[in-house]
Amino acid sequence: MILAVCLNPALDVTYHVDVLVPGAAHRVRSVRERAGGKASNVAHVLAQLGEEVALLGFAGGSRGERFRSALGPVHDRLTCIQGETRQSVAVVDADDVTVLNEPGPAVADHEWEALLGDYTAALPAARAVVLAGSLPSGLPDDAYAQLVRLARRSDRPTVLDTGGPQLLTALAERPTVAAPNHHEAAEALGSPLSGPEEALVAAADLSGRSGGAVVVSVGRDGLVAATPQRRWRATPPRVLAGNPTGAGDALTAALALGIADGRCLPDVLADAVALSGASVVRPTAGDVDRATYDELRPLCRVEEVR
Amino acid sequence: MILAVCLNPALDVTYHVDVLVPGAAHRVRSVRERAGGKASNVAHVLAQLGEEVALLGFAGGSRGERFRSALGPVHDRLTCIQGETRQSVAVVDADDVTVLNEPGPAVADHEWEALLGDYTAALPAARAVVLAGSLPSGLPDDAYAQLVRLARRSDRPTVLDTGGPQLLTALAERPTVAAPNHHEAAEALGSPLSGPEEALVAAADLSGRSGGAVVVSVGRDGLVAATPQRRWRATPPRVLAGNPTGAGDALTAALALGIADGRCLPDVLADAVALSGASVVRPTAGDVDRATYDELRPLCRVEEVR
Repeated sequence: MILAVCLNPALDVTYHVDVLVPGAAHRVRSVRERAGGKASNVAHVLAQLGEEVALLGFAGGSRGERFRSALGPVHDRLTCIQGETRQSVAVVDADDVTVLNEPGPAVADHEWEALLGDYTAALPAARAVVLAGSLPSGLPDDAYAQLVRLARRSDRPTVLDTGGPQLLTALAERPTVAAPNHHEAAEALGSPLSGPEEALVAAADLSGRSGGAVVVSVGRDGLVAATPQRRWRATPPRVLAGNPTGAGDALTAALALGIADGRCLPDVLADAVALSGASVVRPTAGDVDRATYDELRPLCRVEEVR
Repeated sequence: MILAVCLNPALDVTYHVDVLVPGAAHRVRSVRERAGGKASNVAHVLAQLGEEVALLGFAGGSRGERFRSALGPVHDRLTCIQGETRQSVAVVDADDVTVLNEPGPAVADHEWEALLGDYTAALPAARAVVLAGSLPSGLPDDAYAQLVRLARRSDRPTVLDTGGPQLLTALAERPTVAAPNHHEAAEALGSPLSGPEEALVAAADLSGRSGGAVVVSVGRDGLVAATPQRRWRATPPRVLAGNPTGAGDALTAALALGIADGRCLPDVLADAVALSGASVVRPTAGDVDRATYDELRPLCRVEEVR
């Protein structure tokens, strides 16, 4: 069982329209609703790969109910809160996907305590823990740091995918792998990253702080990774056209599976690039194309950078 | 009591963002939720003017519950349906309001029968009936025609605000006033209307079909109106800047109040232009500014066109 912790889940609503024109009224052609948020997407990718996965996090109100009923094969271990689960609207037209992310509901202290209890109870059965996404308001700044520390105490490997100050705080608790995208890494380090080389320097910097592995996705160029001793670049065999929204979540899913199985990092990085590509060809975040994954997996190149 | 019938209500969600950019991800700064849909907006305007008003229509699912709990002073006479009430998202930035209207849930035959029962039961207490908005799928094309006919049998005056084929079908049942906007009138007649003069010809055409009054709003130019014998233009004293979304609903509310009170048409038309203007200065449909209404009311000009 892999545990995915989604502190700021969203009910994702996708609208198809002909052309999105600011200032106009649009007839929505079709509506789809799914359980979204980073860790929820990761959980869905893992479930698609046949992995047992449980989702922890917060859910409340009627949207929280709809979120739970959209979980499918993912086990529901969500903690009830008073606030209403947020909604995220993606407007898809022929050219673009435009996303509107609501802020999450505020979480009360006792609700955070309840989640910590649920999390601690779930840890013994976990092969790995995924901590991914933004924090809702009301949580302590070191929320992720606390979760990493508890996993470490139970000797469970962790993948952390977040950005900003909470990334730095949590790194000090030594997550097994941290996997910010290049925007998040830049945000955490306070300087923009232009291209894979700078991303690799950033990964090495962050890895120095955690003592663990740090993987930074660099979009269609694949990813870069560093441990305190070594550095790698992993690249897909070709540029894949499609929807990049869920690529980072698929990447995180591959990392979680790799550390759960205790495989060596370069091997896991090739998986991560392939699974990320297999998500780009699917229109929805949290969804991967198995055939593309199988095809890309042997073709992804991982080279050590010295 | 005025009855407002909202066959395709929507839970209106308003998002404030900095700038809406197609293809980008946006952080939503604030979220507001209200009971929307044309007849629901009309009902809210009437309630704001101190009128007793009941809302009929369909509501279902968790969004239907949220819709009901957002009705405030408007009496809830909604008929339960199996389907989920639709949502409408308005994205507001500094320049524009961009609207995404979901299609409504399909309504089953027995649900339509149930609504007809609720409507027939409510009619005796009604001073006037408002029929406004689009039809959800599953309803007969002559749904509005049936509702107009039932009101006429009970000797209740009706205001009908809709467009397309159902407008023409319903006109044959002689609503007291029909109030399409110029797009809807154009759609019903199958030819575009460019400006107040053409709108007046269209109003006269439609009035000839119903034998009653037809009022066509022409945006910031006010409105035009026709009965089989006479024609008018009504104009505001100045162009009002703001949000035109609910202007047509305020206009319909003024017409409903006018026919409920049995006042003469030119007088009601001046009210309608003033109340429409009083809605433009408010950011939300279904809301009117009382001071603007009181100020504009004596300044709106109604002239008979011969």
